[in-house]
Parts: sequence; structure tokens; C-alpha cells
Amino acid sequence: MTAPRLVLAYSGGLDTSVAIRWLAEQKGYEVVACAIDVGQVGADGGAEEMERVRRRALDCGAVDAVVVDARNEFADDFVGPAIAANTLYMGKYPLVSALSRPLITRHLVRVARETGAAAIGHGCTGKGNDQVRFEVTAMAIAPDIVVEAPIREWGLSRDAAIVWAQERDIPVQVKTHSPYSIDENLWGRTAECGILEDPWESPPEEVFARSVALADAPDEPEELTLTFADGLPVAVDGKELDLARLIAEVDRRAGAHGVGRIDMVEDRLVGIKSREIYECPGALTILTAHRDLEDLCLEQELAQEKRGLEGRYAQLVYNGLWFSPLKKALDAFVAVSQRYVSGEVRMGLYKGSAWVAGRRSPIGLYDHDLATYDASDRFDHTQAEGFVRLWGLPTKVWARRQGSL
Amino acid sequence: MTAPRLVLAYSGGLDTSVAIRWLAEQKGYEVVACAIDVGQVGADGGAEEMERVRRRALDCGAVDAVVVDARNEFADDFVGPAIAANTLYMGKYPLVSALSRPLITRHLVRVARETGAAAIGHGCTGKGNDQVRFEVTAMAIAPDIVVEAPIREWGLSRDAAIVWAQERDIPVQVKTHSPYSIDENLWGRTAECGILEDPWESPPEEVFARSVALADAPDEPEELTLTFADGLPVAVDGKELDLARLIAEVDRRAGAHGVGRIDMVEDRLVGIKSREIYECPGALTILTAHRDLEDLCLEQELAQEKRGLEGRYAQLVYNGLWFSPLKKALDAFVAVSQRYVSGEVRMGLYKGSAWVAGRRSPIGLYDHDLATYDASDRFDHTQAEGFVRLWGLPTKVWARRQGSL
Amino acid sequence: MTAPRLVLAYSGGLDTSVAIRWLAEQKGYEVVACAIDVGQVGADGGAEEMERVRRRALDCGAVDAVVVDARNEFADDFVGPAIAANTLYMGKYPLVSALSRPLITRHLVRVARETGAAAIGHGCTGKGNDQVRFEVTAMAIAPDIVVEAPIREWGLSRDAAIVWAQERDIPVQVKTHSPYSIDENLWGRTAECGILEDPWESPPEEVFARSVALADAPDEPEELTLTFADGLPVAVDGKELDLARLIAEVDRRAGAHGVGRIDMVEDRLVGIKSREIYECPGALTILTAHRDLEDLCLEQELAQEKRGLEGRYAQLVYNGLWFSPLKKALDAFVAVSQRYVSGEVRMGLYKGSAWVAGRRSPIGLYDHDLATYDASDRFDHTQAEGFVRLWGLPTKVWARRQGSL
Amino acid sequence: MTAPRLVLAYSGGLDTSVAIRWLAEQKGYEVVACAIDVGQVGADGGAEEMERVRRRALDCGAVDAVVVDARNEFADDFVGPAIAANTLYMGKYPLVSALSRPLITRHLVRVARETGAAAIGHGCTGKGNDQVRFEVTAMAIAPDIVVEAPIREWGLSRDAAIVWAQERDIPVQVKTHSPYSIDENLWGRTAECGILEDPWESPPEEVFARSVALADAPDEPEELTLTFADGLPVAVDGKELDLARLIAEVDRRAGAHGVGRIDMVEDRLVGIKSREIYECPGALTILTAHRDLEDLCLEQELAQEKRGLEGRYAQLVYNGLWFSPLKKALDAFVAVSQRYVSGEVRMGLYKGSAWVAGRRSPIGLYDHDLATYDASDRFDHTQAEGFVRLWGLPTKVWARRQGSL
Repeated sequence: MTAPRLVLAYSGGLDTSVAIRWLAEQKGYEVVACAIDVGQVGADGGAEEMERVRRRALDCGAVDAVVVDARNEFADDFVGPAIAANTLYMGKYPLVSALSRPLITRHLVRVARETGAAAIGHGCTGKGNDQVRFEVTAMAIAPDIVVEAPIREWGLSRDAAIVWAQERDIPVQVKTHSPYSIDENLWGRTAECGILEDPWESPPEEVFARSVALADAPDEPEELTLTFADGLPVAVDGKELDLARLIAEVDRRAGAHGVGRIDMVEDRLVGIKSREIYECPGALTILTAHRDLEDLCLEQELAQEKRGLEGRYAQLVYNGLWFSPLKKALDAFVAVSQRYVSGEVRMGLYKGSAWVAGRRSPIGLYDHDLATYDASDRFDHTQAEGFVRLWGLPTKVWARRQGSL
Repeated sequence: MTAPRLVLAYSGGLDTSVAIRWLAEQKGYEVVACAIDVGQVGADGGAEEMERVRRRALDCGAVDAVVVDARNEFADDFVGPAIAANTLYMGKYPLVSALSRPLITRHLVRVARETGAAAIGHGCTGKGNDQVRFEVTAMAIAPDIVVEAPIREWGLSRDAAIVWAQERDIPVQVKTHSPYSIDENLWGRTAECGILEDPWESPPEEVFARSVALADAPDEPEELTLTFADGLPVAVDGKELDLARLIAEVDRRAGAHGVGRIDMVEDRLVGIKSREIYECPGALTILTAHRDLEDLCLEQELAQEKRGLEGRYAQLVYNGLWFSPLKKALDAFVAVSQRYVSGEVRMGLYKGSAWVAGRRSPIGLYDHDLATYDASDRFDHTQAEGFVRLWGLPTKVWARRQGSL
Repeated sequence: MTAPRLVLAYSGGLDTSVAIRWLAEQKGYEVVACAIDVGQVGADGGAEEMERVRRRALDCGAVDAVVVDARNEFADDFVGPAIAANTLYMGKYPLVSALSRPLITRHLVRVARETGAAAIGHGCTGKGNDQVRFEVTAMAIAPDIVVEAPIREWGLSRDAAIVWAQERDIPVQVKTHSPYSIDENLWGRTAECGILEDPWESPPEEVFARSVALADAPDEPEELTLTFADGLPVAVDGKELDLARLIAEVDRRAGAHGVGRIDMVEDRLVGIKSREIYECPGALTILTAHRDLEDLCLEQELAQEKRGLEGRYAQLVYNGLWFSPLKKALDAFVAVSQRYVSGEVRMGLYKGSAWVAGRRSPIGLYDHDLATYDASDRFDHTQAEGFVRLWGLPTKVWARRQGSL
Repeated sequence: MTAPRLVLAYSGGLDTSVAIRWLAEQKGYEVVACAIDVGQVGADGGAEEMERVRRRALDCGAVDAVVVDARNEFADDFVGPAIAANTLYMGKYPLVSALSRPLITRHLVRVARETGAAAIGHGCTGKGNDQVRFEVTAMAIAPDIVVEAPIREWGLSRDAAIVWAQERDIPVQVKTHSPYSIDENLWGRTAECGILEDPWESPPEEVFARSVALADAPDEPEELTLTFADGLPVAVDGKELDLARLIAEVDRRAGAHGVGRIDMVEDRLVGIKSREIYECPGALTILTAHRDLEDLCLEQELAQEKRGLEGRYAQLVYNGLWFSPLKKALDAFVAVSQRYVSGEVRMGLYKGSAWVAGRRSPIGLYDHDLATYDASDRFDHTQAEGFVRLWGLPTKVWARRQGSL
């Protein structure tokens, strides 16, 4: 009888490297390592680094190791809908990790199906959100697959894990250890732990990798024009780019002005508040432009309801329910709204700020001749009196009968 | 028989100056002019300017003219609740004018009662939001009072109004005419009209009065610590100030760094989109700090529901329903939440940005020993597995039965 | 030069009969009368009655008169979506008139286009909701068409209108006058006015036409099984029927048991409360069954969000925004949810009640082996402890830090 | 050293009877049994039955046993707010058990404090909602107390528990075993298990105890008038009653007409759907009347927002968060709304139906002279045109620019 197989989400770091051996020793699995490129190693040169990760998995005892370049898939299937829904958890965080987890799980399941594995695994602890995202995604797309969480189950400290690995000659990298826990993809970068756990202290400059310090940002503002079609950015300064490349380009240019840093106290699904540092130059710039274009293009009742649903949407994704019936229904709502969101937004970038400097659209609902106070005014002012009287009528009746209560 | 009296909201500008005479000629009113200081002339020196306004009203034909210093009342009764509710219309605009209109109407009604007037009046056109705010407020607090809207009813262009005034020797000021329509109080400043009516064009620097241009902002960041008690800011850098003074102080310091400019396309209640430029250095700085402190202090279910209601709250106020039963009920909800919002927020100010550099609270819900990944971790990781399994159970059952639909 | 043409929504009653002549005399229109059959004259024999209505229009001076049998269109395009969204205004009223007005307006516009008319007209007063529905629908689907509201503009009392008609030999029917104002279609029947305007008084039995008095209802309950596919009822007791016929059948059978009476005080868009009597045997029976089947078939997060949106949906339709971008987006949300709503519901009917006696679905999410407390229990009780601990954790932290506030 | 003490919620049934011994044997606790009367044994004669329960606890090995008559406390502190918020989970279930659990937990904690116990316990399994309500309430009001769940932890089947009890001579009652799991208090009665687990089958008549079968209901309707003050019912047919007695009276009279049966498929917090049978004659009658009076008394914007929040409120309570900051904030919102809810509602009762036959209020917002179509009409119809035009303006602009998309 052969050993059961498990496909492990593999990052190349200490935790998942020791997990390969632990899953074999403790659970009897043959581990297939699966490393997914969602843009964590930058727009260029990723292939080489991903190959290094792949080989490390084999060195650590994986029976097989595969690398998937999922950058376009990530941009198109996950970041695109997040842009359309202006996805910001708690109004602030563009959901970097929460967007990649369902994609990674989808690949783990695919590889499991292809290699005859009945299980998948992830390297999350019991305290974060990512365990939820991996496992609930698996329940949604492969409800019968087994999910292993070796790090959560094992409960080993970092130091103990290093000793455990050294005893077994597992070639883990320990010298390049960062004091922070980092996750990264083309939509942004996250950091927690260490000194960041004191929310009164500013994050040290060393935490950041994709945005310059304000003091080092250029002394001249820069302008960047984003073109949107049906709610998605399709061109930068008139140059068409596929979404993955467009995000990388905007990220680079906005980051060069120190744009994109987020410092927040966050509510985790598992019931605790944590302090998080995010770095999302491209995401914040694109979302700011997108929201502004919506203000120009969306009819006001639709706009208002959509703003209300966006919080729910972000929460849903944050909580691991990307593949869920409510998410599908919300996507359908959002998709209708995005038919109307096409046009251009001029963004200013300077010293940490990304602001809208102008917007226009061939299908925008701003009507100069209705809005203007100059001679071309087409608005019928006499209708206003009737409107105001009936608008206020419920309040007036209330005031007469109950105003003193 | 004596002429009926009307109390007119008087600004000293062209429109309300000619309205005094028009109301007398066309409607037979004796007009009492009422000028309210809500901070539009700055923290200091307001009294002298307000006295000039008062005398101009008399010169224009008012039978009486009164000035009210309502700065503290405005801060305490109107801006305070707006801070507590993080009031931003469309997520962007801190509701400068919408907050002052109900206060002004309250004083118009009070003066009407005191002077035996059965009517009040405002100088709004039929196209803006302010007509709604004046009139619906009146319906709410004095449902039997008559409200006149001479400018809306008259429909005269600016040039025609000047000729009309000159024919009658009404001493209107015409040379200092701004191309923009401005409203201002201690919570911010609004500008519309002229070149601003093209939403693709950036506002010219001359539009702004309370914030320096980014290029002119200091090259060094500044830090400012706000202390909150029960949801309201009570001290700046440890120095206690009443709310009106505190806002003015933060406004001055944030404006000196170019903070507070808002450029947006806005949905008016009367059904049109308009392009608006706001300048709110103090408001944006305070609201950013307040929201951040809430993230530290509010339990997550409450925080999430409150965020959902804030949009409704802002819309309600924008739409003139400050004095309404729904507003009372929302205020009661917000008031409970603010019991938990006390602490300090360190704000960074630099080149147009106001960011949170740190936050702390003796009653904050961030618990280092739960959140940390270091040795003091008190979180029970073994509970997570059960949690995740049940959290995902509805999705899993859905996937089994309906996942393919 | 020929007279301009107008297409008038014609019911055959006094108001629209005199409006034909008034529009000709006062506004110079040639009036084309358009009578739409949306089920108001019952499932059978409608054609004959509609032909009588058509001839009356010609007798009253219309230059042309057309009859449209829109019963299937009404059921499929308007009632179907309303079922999917469980549309009940204020949680009570299935929106009888509000559903037919956009359909009627769509036909008025179509006939106008076909007959070269640049205007349409309706017979509503200025106090009800229907004026809004006609006019806003026209703005949405034909923003350049002129809409005339002769009754609202004219402001004549009923008695004066009769005199006016008699002076002109307009053959209006005056003897069959009901003390109530009635509207009717296949989804229900509405009544207002007269004694109904005292909300403390029960409606007299004569108000009702589609449901028997409870005392006259059969002494034996009846069962009726509805089959739903993708959210719509498709069969009664196993017999497939198109939607219009199915509604008529359920309406007849439920009405025979006295089901379907609604007595409510309602908030109109124009700012007043009115007392309304509705009679909707089929609508209430179908909606009760549909909601119950959703409880069986919808995943709980989706179900909860949908319930929240249903109130907004009903309000939107009530307020005349059937053809609006928000309605389109909500329909897309609802459509996704309805993929999961298929199965059967057994309804009991007796003495005014329609209740669910049982429900089943091949894709229902009720899982006996998870739900049961008997020996086949597959639920893992040990997961519950972890779940409860983390579920309560935010409350626990709150209690420790803030519970006393 | 003495044994630690635990206060157990004791019902007198098999589970909690064996739990007394199990907690002693397995966990070393001295158990204090606490039986709370929340109306489960009827309005009268409860004291005697509760005393029997108390003595049984002692017979089963409790070191002490206390009985608490909490009927008025339950009505005033728990049912009252639930009425004010029209609390119906999923729009259907008045939350019978969910309302009593926080009260019971509050008494367990109180008795624990008084008797020096550091732990409390409940007899719930791991599959239901009640475990959550007990434990989260404890976290909220006594975050440091230990909560034991012996039945969940033990995992014994009913038959095994009986054997276990007989081996130890624990005097459990086994012959009167119902095939259903029942919970009951003055607000209603719940039943699950057995044949009820097939949601296609109607519940057998034997399930019900507080409502007669429709066939046995009187052949004459009955009328019952409820008087409300500030949102709470205070009198029946003009006779003032405290809330607990009033509920019992309405429950009895409505139940005699077969009113109050609820048959639903319900979404549990722990992720499963269950089929539930509730019997709530008084609750449904009172809630129907209360909602109707709100339609008469609440201004429409407030009414609409309140309806939206009611679903959240019910969910919160269902999910065990009665003592939570969000619940406090929602209660404050609701309390403001209830200032306006006073008046009388006439209810009809007949053959399973409870309907509103009339309503009136000295502070109702129905204004006959505004609503009427007769000669006393005070509504200004000419204002309607302006209102409709501006109301539809956003749709019109949308239609012109985007209507074809």
C-alpha cells in the first residue's frame, strides 16, 4: 500500500519547509509542494526565484514540487472583482492576503486532483485569518478533501522548529530571518509582529519595501492618468496594459512617491484585534481613482446602495468566503454597476498622497447645463419648491404630532 | 394694520442684501436681518466684521438686524455629533454647510418668536441643497412658520440683481466679487461655480484659503496628538481646549501642511451631480484620528454596524433631516458607542497628508497577549480548528448540494 | 399643421374619459386611448370587456383606441421578479399597482412611437404614488417624451367633472360609482377612500371581491402544492401552468378560503400616511411558499443579506424606480440566489390562513444527518467548544475592558 | 481543601439530573442546582412544580438547590425589549429560548457569586444554539468565570445516560419521555426532534400544547384590544396588566383560537439548518399589533431604518449576544423610536389567524385631512409636479447617458 499524498502550499520559508517532513513523519503523507507566484517576487525575475523555492522543497523531502505562475489569473479573477467592489476591509485595507488564499487553494485542489492526492495542507497558525481562508475555500470547491494544518496542530515555536529541522538536516534558511511576518503579492504587502505589536509606536522604516520614505520622495509631484473600461483599469497614461502589468506599473510609480502605507488596528475573524502594516501603493491609487469615477458615473441610488454593500463584500472576502453563494450574488450586483464605469481619472502623486486631479467620462452623469449657475442653466428652479415641501412633509407631520416627545 | 415681519438669514452678500428690499416691495414684509457667526470669519476678529454685516443690513432696508455668535453652539451641538458619527457624505465630505443650516434656522425661528415674526427667509436658489436644509429644519422645529425663498422665487440673474439694486440705491458690494460661490464655517470651507464646473480641470490655487499649496508646505513633518474622551476631542498635545477652539487650532496646524483639500463630484438631493471643492484641514484630521481610535476601542460587531449606519447618518444630514426622529434615534445609537472611545491618537502632518502615527487607550480592546506571536501568547490555538470547521459548515453543505449550480 | 398626438392610459372610468376631451380642448392634443389588460377583468372573458372600454374611448372623443392583452407580459416581466425578491412594501403589501404602472407606461411609449405621438398621459392625481410611477418610468425609458397629467393639473372634483362631461355630452358612467377607489390586476386588488379613511374602523365586507368572508369560508382545510423552479412557481398540485394562469388559479383557490386580505397604514412617497385595503390571495400564498422554500434552499449568509435587500427592493418599486440602474443591479443579485430555489411547498388553506404544511427540495440545504439528534448524527460536537470560545472572544475582551461602562 | 463549587442550570430533566453526578465524579465539583421559573409551568401553580424540581436536584446529589421566580424579570428585561424591536429571527421566530438564556445565565452567575462558586454549568449539547447563549452571556457579564458543558463534553446518548443513572441510583424520570425536545417560557414553546426532523411532514397535533387545533377552534371570531404606551402593551380590553400577566392573558386567548403556530427551517449559528416548531400565540398577536401601531406612529424614514435593523437585532439575540455593546446601541436606537408608539390596536382572533381590525393613536401620524380624497383635502396637489420631476431627475439623466447599456 502506498502512502497517501498531500499537496502543501509551499512558500520556501521555515514553517512550510519543516512541515514537509512533519507531515511525512507524523501523518504518513507523501508531500507534493506547490509554490504559487502571485507576484510576491516582483514583476520580473520571478521565475528564477520560484525555481529556487521549488528545489528547496525537494531538498526538504517533498516527493514532487510544482511552481505555478498565477500572476495574470490573480489579477483577472481576484484583484479585478476587488477593484470593482472597492474592496477595503474596515474601509482601509485592500485585502492583499485574503485575495490570494482562495487562488492558492484552488491550485492546491487542482494539483491534488491531478496527482491523486486526497489532502491539501497549509502552514498557518490557529490565530490568523489565513487558516480560515484556506479551509473554507477548500470546503467550498472540494468539500470532501482533507485539509491539514501542520503548524497549527504541531504548535511548535520558531526556535524549537529550527532545532527540530537541524536534527533532521532539513536545509532551512535561518539567517535571513526578518523580525516581521511578511506576506506579499502584486496587490500589496503585509507586515505584522515584533515592534509592530505596539500600536502606539510608528512602524520603523525597515518594515517597508514598496514605498519610499516621505523624506526621500521626489520634490516634484507627478501625474498619472488611468483609463477605466467597465470598471477596470485598462491603460496608464494612454498605454494599454493587461491588469497584472498595469497594477505593477502603478504600484511602482505610486510607491516612488511614498504612497500606499496603511497602519491600522484590525478586527480578525477569530475574535482578536491585531496591529497591521500594509503597503499598497498601486492598490490605493487605483481604488481612489475607481471610486472617484464611480461618483461621476453611477446614478445616486445605485451608488449609495453599492457603498453600503462594499463593506459587506470586503468582510466576506476577509472572512474566507470568496467562493460562496453570497459572494456570487454580490458580484452580479457589482457587475451591473460597472457597465456604467468608464472614463479617465488624472491622479496626482506626491509625498505620500495620491489624489484625484480630474475625471471625465463619455457616459458620466455630470451634466454641466444642469449643474451650472451660469447662463446655460437648464435646471427648472420652480420645481424645487414642490419638491422641498413634499420632501419635508413627513417631518412636518411628525413635528406637529410628536415633535415635543 | 402693521406689516408682517420676517427674519432673514443675512450674510452681507449681494443676494440677501437685495432680498431685504424685494421682500418688502413684493411681499410687504418688514425684514429683520439675522447674521450668525459660525466661524466663517476666523477664530479672532469676528465681532468687528459681524458688526459691519449688521450695519449693512440696516443700510439695505432691514427694520432691525441682529448678530449671533454661535461658534460654541455650532461646535458643541452640531460638529460634535458629526464627529461621533464620522460624518462624511459619500465617504468624503464632512458636511460643512449642511451642519450650519439647522443651527441658523433654529436662530431664525428663535428671533422670529422673540420679535413677533410669523415668517423666516433664506437666500438660496432652487438648485442647491441648502434650501432643503432651511425649509425642512423649519418644518421640524416650527411647522407652522412661513418660509420665504426670495431668490428662488424671484429667479433674477446676478447682473440683473445688481441693476435692480442700483436703481434703488441699495448699497451692495460688487467689486469684490469672487468667481466662486463660497460658504464657510469653523468646520470647513466650500467652493463651487466658475471654472470648477469642469470636473476634469484641477481647481486653481486661488480657490483655497485655509490650506497652503503642497509646494509651499513645510519640508519637515509635524506631529500632533489628539486626546479623545467619550468620542470627542478634548485636548491637543495635552492642552485642553473647548471644542470650537480645538477645531480652530487643528485646522490651522493641519492647513499649514496643505492638509484638507477635497475635490469631488457630488450627488445632490435635488437630483443632479455637482463638482465641489472643500477645504477641511481640521475636520479631516480629527475624523481620521477618531475613526482610528474607534478601530482600537470598538468591539467588532458594533464597529461594523456603526460603519454601516454612518453613511445613512451623513445622507440624512446632507438631506436636511438634522432635526428628525431618525436622526435622534441614530444619535442614541452613536452615543452608546462613544462611551468606549477614549484615548490618544498621534497624527503626522506633512505635505497634504494627515496620518495616524500611533494610538493608545486605557480601555482599548487591543490585547497584546492575545495578539502577539511571541512567547507571551495567551490565545488558545486549538480552539481554532473547531471554529473554522463550523464557520465553513454552511459553505460546505452548499458546496455539496448546490456548488455546481 | 396637424394637432400633436398624445397616448393616454385609459381605464374606461370617469377621470380618463373626461381627460380625453380636456386634453383636446385645453392642450390641443389628438388623444389615442390605450387600455391595457393586466388581469383586472379576471382570467376569462376579459376580451369582451376590454372591447367595451375601447369603444367608450372613441365615444369620448379619442381619435384612436387600442387594447393590449398584457397578462402574460405582466406575469413574466413584472410579477416574476417581484416573487423572486419576495417583494412586500413595509413587509406587508405585494405591490399590486406599483408593478403594473411601469408595464402600462412601456406600452404607452410604444404606441406613441408607433403612432407618431410625442406625449403620453395618465389620469392620476397629485397625491398618490401612481403619478410618480408613470412619470419616472417615462423618464427612464423615454427621457424626451412629454408626460401630461390632466387630472392633477385640472384639479376638478368628481362632481364638477360629471357636470363638465354632461355639458359636452361625454358618455361617462356615473351610476355604477363605487364609494371606493379600486385598482386591480392579476396580482391583487387595492381599495381606498370613503369609510376606509378611518383606520380604526374595519373595512366593510363590500370592499372585497376576491376573497370570501371568513364566516363563509369552507369548514374544511384544503391543501395546495406549489412547485418552484429557479425561484418561480411552475406547477400547482403537479400540474404545470404558465405564470399568469398559475397565479389566477392560486388566487381563486386561496380566495375561496378567505386568504389574502391586507389592512394597513402605508407610507406614501409623497410624504403622507394613507390607509389601504389590499386583497391578494394568490400573491400572499405564493410569497409565503417562496420564502419558506428559500429558508430551506439558501445558504444562511446569502439568505440574510437577501432579506435585508428585499425591503430596499420593494421600496424602490413602490417609489416608481422599476426601470432604474439600482433595480437592475438588485435583480442580478436576486437572480443568482434563485438558482438555488427549486422544490415543492405544501400549503394549507383554511379560514383566512395560508400556511406551509411541508417543504422539500432535491437541492435543499437541510441535511438530516447533520440536524438530527438521533443515532445517525454526523455533526462533530467537539468542534463546538472551540467555535463558541472564539465566537464569544470579542465580547469577553470587551467585558474585561469596558463591560462596566 | 474543599471541593470547588459549580452552579448548574437545572431543569429537572434527565440530562441535567445526571450531569449533577457526572460533574461531581468527573470534575470534582460540588453542584448547586439552580432552577429558574420563566413561565414554563404556566401562569399559575408554578411554585409547587418548581419545588418538586428543586427536591429532585437534591435527590440527584446537588449540595444545594435554589428556585428563582423570574417571570416578571423575564417579561420586563427581556421580552419587553424584544417587543420594541419586533424581534423575529428570519422574520418568523420570536426567539423564545434565546431570550431566556441570558436571564438564566445572569442568575447562575449571581448565585455563583453568592455561594462562592467559580464555575457555572449548562446541559446543552454541541449542536444547538443554547450553548452559545449560555457561554457568551457568561463571557459578557463574568468574563473570568469557568463554564462547564457536561453533556457536550460527555457525549452520552440518552439510553446510555439512563443506564449510567440507574447504575448510580439517580432518580431520573424516564417514563414520561416525550419524543420531542421541548423548551418553554411565557413568550412561547419550542419543539424539535423525532418526526419533526422531516420538514416535508406536518407536525402531529400532539406536538402542541398552547394552541388548539384549527378544527377545534371556536366558530366565532373574538376581538381583543391592546393598549400600548411607549411601545409596550399595558392593557388588554382596557384592563391594565403587568407585562408578564398581559402576555399570559393574550397567549391564552389567542391560543384558544389556534393562533401562534410556526413551522420553519431555521439557520443555526453553528452552521446547520434545523426544522423547528414553535407555538407563540401571545407573542405573534402582540408583535402583529405592535408592528401595526408603528406603521401608524413612526415617521417613514425612521420606520424604514428600524425595519432594517430589526433583522440584525434578532440575529444578534439568536446568536447569544444579548449582553453586548452592539445590543446596547441598538436598544438605544429602538428606545427613541418607541417614544412615539402609543395607542390602541383592535385584534381579530379566529381559526388560527390574528389580524389587525383597527388602530388609533393620539400621536399617530395618519392625518385624515392630508390623506383624504374628499372635500376636506388639505394636500397641495400642485407641489407634486415639482416633486416628481426632481425625484425622477437622476433616472432621467441616467436614461439619457447610459440607458442603453
